[in-house]
Formats: sequence, C-alpha cells, structure tokens
Amino acid sequence: MKRLLLASAIALALAPSPALADTLFENVDGISITPEGKVKRFAAMVVNDEGRITELLDFGDGPEGKVDYLEDMKGAHVVPGFIDSHAHVMGLGLGTMTLDLSQTRSLEEALALIADYAAKYPERPWLLGHGWNQEQWGLGRYPTAAELDAVVGDRPVWLSRIDGHAGWANSAALAAAEITAQTRDPAGGRILRLGNGRQPAGVLIDAAMAPVDQAVPPPLPEDREQALFAAQKIFFEHGITAVADMGTSLADWMSYRRAGDAGWLQMRIMAYAGDLEEMLLIGGTGPTLWLYDDKLRMGGIKVWLDGALGSRGARLKTGYADDPANLGIDVTSGTQLRNIMSRAALDDFQVAIHAIGDAANDEALAAIDELAAEYPGERRWRIEHAQIVDPADIARFGQHGVIASMQPVHMASDRLMAEVRVGPDRLAGAYAWRSLADAGALLAFGSDAPVEPVDVLAGLATAISRQDAAGEPAGGWMPEQRVTREQALAAYTAAGAYAGYAEGRFGSLQVGERADFVVLDNDPLLTSPEELRTTRVLQTWVAGRRVFPAQ
Amino acid sequence: MKRLLLASAIALALAPSPALADTLFENVDGISITPEGKVKRFAAMVVNDEGRITELLDFGDGPEGKVDYLEDMKGAHVVPGFIDSHAHVMGLGLGTMTLDLSQTRSLEEALALIADYAAKYPERPWLLGHGWNQEQWGLGRYPTAAELDAVVGDRPVWLSRIDGHAGWANSAALAAAEITAQTRDPAGGRILRLGNGRQPAGVLIDAAMAPVDQAVPPPLPEDREQALFAAQKIFFEHGITAVADMGTSLADWMSYRRAGDAGWLQMRIMAYAGDLEEMLLIGGTGPTLWLYDDKLRMGGIKVWLDGALGSRGARLKTGYADDPANLGIDVTSGTQLRNIMSRAALDDFQVAIHAIGDAANDEALAAIDELAAEYPGERRWRIEHAQIVDPADIARFGQHGVIASMQPVHMASDRLMAEVRVGPDRLAGAYAWRSLADAGALLAFGSDAPVEPVDVLAGLATAISRQDAAGEPAGGWMPEQRVTREQALAAYTAAGAYAGYAEGRFGSLQVGERADFVVLDNDPLLTSPEELRTTRVLQTWVAGRRVFPAQ
Repeated sequence: MKRLLLASAIALALAPSPALADTLFENVDGISITPEGKVKRFAAMVVNDEGRITELLDFGDGPEGKVDYLEDMKGAHVVPGFIDSHAHVMGLGLGTMTLDLSQTRSLEEALALIADYAAKYPERPWLLGHGWNQEQWGLGRYPTAAELDAVVGDRPVWLSRIDGHAGWANSAALAAAEITAQTRDPAGGRILRLGNGRQPAGVLIDAAMAPVDQAVPPPLPEDREQALFAAQKIFFEHGITAVADMGTSLADWMSYRRAGDAGWLQMRIMAYAGDLEEMLLIGGTGPTLWLYDDKLRMGGIKVWLDGALGSRGARLKTGYADDPANLGIDVTSGTQLRNIMSRAALDDFQVAIHAIGDAANDEALAAIDELAAEYPGERRWRIEHAQIVDPADIARFGQHGVIASMQPVHMASDRLMAEVRVGPDRLAGAYAWRSLADAGALLAFGSDAPVEPVDVLAGLATAISRQDAAGEPAGGWMPEQRVTREQALAAYTAAGAYAGYAEGRFGSLQVGERADFVVLDNDPLLTSPEELRTTRVLQTWVAGRRVFPAQ
Repeated sequence: MKRLLLASAIALALAPSPALADTLFENVDGISITPEGKVKRFAAMVVNDEGRITELLDFGDGPEGKVDYLEDMKGAHVVPGFIDSHAHVMGLGLGTMTLDLSQTRSLEEALALIADYAAKYPERPWLLGHGWNQEQWGLGRYPTAAELDAVVGDRPVWLSRIDGHAGWANSAALAAAEITAQTRDPAGGRILRLGNGRQPAGVLIDAAMAPVDQAVPPPLPEDREQALFAAQKIFFEHGITAVADMGTSLADWMSYRRAGDAGWLQMRIMAYAGDLEEMLLIGGTGPTLWLYDDKLRMGGIKVWLDGALGSRGARLKTGYADDPANLGIDVTSGTQLRNIMSRAALDDFQVAIHAIGDAANDEALAAIDELAAEYPGERRWRIEHAQIVDPADIARFGQHGVIASMQPVHMASDRLMAEVRVGPDRLAGAYAWRSLADAGALLAFGSDAPVEPVDVLAGLATAISRQDAAGEPAGGWMPEQRVTREQALAAYTAAGAYAGYAEGRFGSLQVGERADFVVLDNDPLLTSPEELRTTRVLQTWVAGRRVFPAQ
C-alpha cells in the first residue's frame, strides 16, 4: 500500500541522517576509571551530538571518525563527573530556603540568628531551619523549647539537627503537632522531657519528629521548583553530575519529572523511593526506564533500619558507652525489612538499607543473606552508611555483591562523637573503608547532603588521609582504613554509577558513555590531601555540554 | 573557545537536516472541520515525519513541497480522529478485566453469570463486576446481598451499577467494608436498608460505596498496564484517537506516563485530576506540558457536584417525581466547589464540573459566574453531563465561554428513566443539546465509558435523530433538540480538542495539526441516522501512522 518514490529514496540514502555534530575535546589531561579503580589516561576525546564518547585518544593520535567542532581544553585536568552516592536532592534544595545554623558556635549565636530570621520573614507562617549541633556549641545538653520561645513566641519554629535525626521545636510548634506531657514516645522515637516531669523539653528524636514534620505546611510547588534548581546548581558547582537520591518522595519525583519534561533537569538522579507504596506507584512492574537521556531513573527503595549515632538512634549490639541502657532505635523491624526487601526484589527493584549501628548492619547483612537465597542473581544490595560495623561482620560484606555506600566526611565530623558514643573498644569496625573494600564490598562514596556539605574534594582528601579539614588527627584516625587515591576517585565516580545500575551510561569516561566530566585545577591522583582540599572545580560538563560555569 | 571546522560547517549547511520523510495521502474524500462545525473538503494531504499536516490539497492539485512516500487511500471517507470528551480510560480498561453484567435481562440471568464467573476464577480474592441495571431486569426494586450470598458466599462480591453511582455487595463485601446496621449514611451517600430495620440491604448509593471501594485490593501494576492497553485498543477500534479522562487518579497518571516512557502510549489523553491534591502533585505550578508528542497532558480537575439520575443522586431544584422528599445528593458543597475552582484557577488549571440535576447545573453556573469575575480571561469552564437543566438557566450557558460536555447516548439510554425521575414538566431542558448550542455553549460530545459503550457512530446518530438504536421514539424524543450533522461531528472532534486546550495540535485535520484521522465506509455528513449506526470504522490513524487495524 505504501511505496517509496525512487528519487526520494536516493536522497534519503545519501543524506547524512540524522545530521549529528561531533566535537573533539583536545589538549586534555584526562582520567578514565573503572569501578575497581583501574585508571587509563587520555589526551583527547570525541563526543557525538548525543553527548556520548565515541573515541578516547592518546597523545599524538588523531580521531578516526569525522569531527565537526574543536574544543581546546588547554591541558585541563579532566576526571569523570563526580557521583554523590547518597544525598537528598530536594532536602538540599529546600534547605537553601531555610535558616542555616550549621556555622553557629554557641546557643546564643544561634538564638540571635533565629531572631534576625524571624524579623526578616514576618509573613512566613512557620520558621524552618537546620544544621544546629549542640556538640559544636559545647552545650553539654540539648537546647529547649523555652529558649526558642524567648526569641520567637508568635509562631511555630522547627529546626532540624545537623544529622537530620533530631528536631528542636518551640512551644508553638509542639502545640501545632499536639505533643504534650500526655504524648507517649512513639516506636522508633523519643520525646526528650524536662527534668522535672513528663513535659516535652523541645527536642524530638527520630520517629518522634514526625508529628511536627506533618504539621509543617508542605512547600508550595513553586518553592519545590526553586529548590530543585538551587540543588542542581550546588551539585554542579562541586563537580557532581549524578546523585543517588535516597528516599525520593512522590512529590520529589514529580518535581524531577516536571523539570525533565520542561528540559531543565541537567543533573542525573538515581532515585530510591521513600516507601514501598511510592516505589510501586512510580515504577509499576519494576524500575522505571532511564528517562530524559539518562537523567532520571527510579531504581528501587531506601529502607531505614535505624537512626543516627549523634542522637543515639543507631542500633548497637550492646548499649551506648555514654548511655548503657540504650540500644538505639528500631526504625524498621527485621520482619518488616524482609517483607520490604522481598516485595522489592520480586520485581527487580534495588534495595538500599540505611544501617548505622553494628546491630543494624548485622541485621541488614543477615537479611541480605536470606533474600539472596530467595532472589538469586545480581541484586546489588546496598547498605547505606555502614558506619559502625562489628569487625566480625566485615567479611560478610564480601558476599552477595554488597555495595557499601559510605560518606567519608562523616568520619571527620563524627569521630570524636563516635568515640564517646560507642567507646574505643568498638571502633575497629568504624568507618572501615579499607577493610570493607578488602573484604570485597564495592565502595560508593557520597555526602549525605544536606546533612554534610556537598564537597567531593574534601571527601577525597578525607578518604586518603583519615584526617579532617584541620589535618587532625596527625597521621590520621585509624590510618589503616585509608584508601588509595584511585579507590577514592572510583568510589566517587564509576563505582557510584555501578551502584545505581548506570555503568555504561556515565561515570567512567569510557567509549559509549556520556561525556560527564569535571575540570580541576590539580590532578587528584598526584596531589597531597592538603592540596586536594584547596583544589577547585573549574568546570563541570554533562553529556558534552558545560553546565558550570553556566553558559 | 569552541570553533567550527570549516569543512564540517559546509557539510552541515548542505545536509538536509534533519532528514524527514513526507508522505502524500492521496485519493482521499476528506473532511476537516472547525469547533463551530465549519466544514472543508479535501482530496489529499501531506504529512511530515512528526505526523503533522503540512498541506491540504483540493482535487487535481499537487503538493508544493517535496514528497517521499505515497499512500493511496483509494477514495476513502476520512474524518478527523474522534475525540471522546468524557470517558474513564482506566475504568474502561479495568472493566474489561471484570464481569460484564450489562447484557443481562433478569436478576436470575445475572446470578447465573456470577456463579459461573466465581467458578472460573477460584483464585481471585474478590469478584468484581459492573453493568447491572435493575430497570433493565424489570425488577422494580434493587437486588439484595442475600441474593448474591446464595451464589457466592465464600468471598466478597462487588458489582457496580451501569451508571457507576450504585454498587451491589454480598455479605462478605459488606463485612470487609465494615458496613453494619450501626453504620450511618455518609454525607453524599445512602445505604439501602432492609424493610424490616437498619440492616444493610446490599446496595450502596454514591458516597456510601466508598468503604467497599476502599476495601477492594487495588489492581496490581501489571493489571493496570494490561487495562490501559485494552482501553487504547477499544478506543482505536471505534475511531477514537483522543480522550478527556475525567477523574484521573495518581495511579492512572503513573500508568499513562509509564506507557508514554516506554513508547506504547499511542492515544491522546487529556487528563483531569480526581482531586486537588493529585492535581497539584502532578501539575505543580500549572497544567503539565503536552508530553510525548501531544499524547498526554494534565490540564485541570474534575469536580463532582452531584450523583446520577438513575440512583436519584442528581441534585434537583424540587423533589424527584418518583420520590418527592428526595432532592438528590450534594457530593461537593457550594463552598467546597468554589474553593476548589479558586485554587485551580489561581494556577490556570481548567475546571470540569460534573452536574447532572437542574440544581447542580444552577449551582455550577452560579459558581462559574462568580469565579469568572475573580479570574477573568479565557478559562474554558466545563460542565460535564448537564443533563437536566432548568430552561431558565439555559441562556447562562452562553456566558463565560462555558463548554457543555455531554453524552448523546445518555439521552437514548435514560430518557424513559428520566421521564419517571423528573416528570414531564421538567424535561424541556433535558439533554437540551440544541438549546445549549443556540445559547452559545460549545458542545463537546463523549461516551462516559465505561458507563456507556464507546460508540461514536451511535452517538452521532442519536445526536441528529434523538432516537435510540431501535429508532425509538418515532420522529425523535424532543426532536427540536437535534443538532446538525456538522454540529455533531464537530462536537466529537474539533470542539473536543478545543475543550481540552488542544486546538492547533489535533482534532480538525488542518495544516499544522497532527494527522489523526478515521477511515469510515460512509460519509457521515451525507448518511441517514440508520446508516450511521451501521457505518464501520475501517481504519484509525494517529499522527500519520495507522493504529487500527494494528500494523
């Protein structure tokens, strides 16, 4: 019924269809890397119109295929775009729209900042903030609602702690959440009480935060849009081109899709749903396709097994060193965990288990062991954080291809607190990157932003030195847990892609992958930890297009 | 920094980029039509690779541009793809996966079918069905739970009435929904009781259906996928290329997106969310973009103001003729309606108000009048059904560009029931297509599938004859309400596009629009109503590609 006109057939056959333009990036001091940290240097690359690498060239070699454009990189140090394997994209973005208390050095300084903020935004129905840390204040106790009431009494104030596992409310916020002396501690949470009785003191731990979170008016759609845009900008400024978004809500997902639909989603988001219902609603019969030219995919679910160490929510095998009766909080029971994992694995959804304490890690490993028997094959089970692991359990990370998704900067921020919380005897398996890697776990590094700042170079420096920004402690904290520069770079790039089923798409700077890369002012495989901390991200490119500085 | 190599620049400039193929559809007896029913005949059209019409040609004229392919249509009668302006896509699809009782002529026949169905699907935890009509059974009363229990006692059975406004449950289903003698009628609903007391009789009206609906296990993602595929196939078989989906749930939307992402969403869906929360979650700051090459858009919200006439849920100004104390059901209060409309209009979402009874239509018109003052400009307020309108209110449809979204087949199915429910005195404004059009309302026709069958040709026949499939009543029911063939065809095509903000994209078969068209074996503007009913859809095309019969 349908016939092709001959003249047109010839014209079609002869036409270079589709008319794509190839660009040669030359004069590059380039590094491509495998998830295992195997490095290959290159001097030039050809990138096609889809942003895919078609050739990697050594010094002196010319491209085999045709080239339409030249981009002289002038000897730039080029590494794969960084991948943050554990962050909260919308949390980071919305955080930029709330009060940042992370730089305050005392309770008084924080209260003064809060008072200023209240005066600056008289029309906001709630005042929201984040980043406080009573340890940093040297307070020796948690702050109280009464202290907040003294500076803001007219409307609710709700401020989350630096680790996101505790919140500080004023009386108006407690009232809005209907938290009173009669309210009992929920499962998986704790309401701190005043010393003289049952009266809530103002700080709520883990699950006890939920009623206040639920009372906060949700962000408006336009706020969410602004937040996503802000988060993407921050990631690009830090050379991050892809993020594993841990605990993507339905509203988050919808924001990502709208940005993708409208064409301004430029970063890559590997989404892990915040619960089963949302995972199934979004994914249906399995992970979504890679959408928007490999920019977005919902691959599985994040499950919270315990809380955090700072708020004593991490589940430990024996009591906290500084609170011996306390074993931490079961956010999800072992049975629930297995049910969730089973439902996810049934349809090939990936499972990322938040486990911080040694008991939680033990539980996660035991569940993986059981589920791996029921659902064989490559599942890429992820354990998020894996902060305090019983040394006896480390070898178990080598089984079933477990991915250890860890955040080097947590070690630098938390080590003193960790010493207090778990005591010196249990530190042998704390932030044990090298031991886990040696056991066979694939390391994927991230920031946990907005809990910690988005700073891969600080992370790389910490990973290879076991020191904080001040170079403390001298010689490194448990220096045997340092990883090599190549391991660290791989954990922030190619391994992060593998951990999100994205190998072959981005992360390695290899032929066939998207040309996501960062231009640094130092070679990260040849510089000292101190130099790494001052190394600057000069440019960030996604799929062969520069996204920072914005064009 | 970036420079174009000269040789490549020339090659790019010379290349016919992008290399698109144009197809000439020749030998067409084609009709293009405006929303107002202005017809233009054409003999050939050129369609580009995006499926857009680039030329409409008269007999004997040749194309101005180049043409790569020829498609000889052999004189086919071609009209714009039909647009169903009121249907429930997933409802139709899921309905194909449940028991159809719409052809049963007696309670006994229905019960026998149910027993067979139970035997056929022993593993299904619930038995679901639809389409029963006690009027069609000549029962003179509603059926009871006990009658169902006698054939299926081991698990819940839940069967919705033909109009979707009543459901028939067995005792297991009532128990699952915890509906007992102590349960009070909810606002907007009614639990029918046994004559001897408070005991639920088995049939639940409107809002009273909710507890059972909520107790039904939700369809599995794979069932939803199968359902969407089935619905799309049914629409294409009937020449329907676009549908206004009235009351799209979040799960529905996700199914549509997954189909779009995977590339098999071929029909066009203009979605209206089922509630504000879902509308805002999906749309964010306004209607979504047109996605997947004009296949999908969330444009606004459907609001239910009253129930249906058959179940006496339609809101009337004075009592039902056959139940004088009953004024129908307020599904949404006037205040709620205005709040919803206001929130929607604030961000340019469109509002489609379900209004069946004369009181509901009065209320909808009053609300539109108020909202139009607050939110001026073109809003395309839609009233869905507009079945029983007080003749005094008809002129108000001409204000504020109201769209009357009506279903011709409802008149044929419901006229005898309507005579009983509202009595002869109030019929002057019943299904008053011509009066509404004359008043200045734009008519957009649909099926209300799965409430009524998807059959545009029957709809066209009814619209121009005011007769049912049997040709009853002779001369037509209130024949002054007939519309012209051109009005009817426009209401099923171009006006439906306009009603969904899709004019210029599809619906008219004009230059610049997508080539969505139907091949019929008769000319619908030249045939009798009887011939229209037997006119067959030979082919259906979307964007210049044949979708029925599938290629």
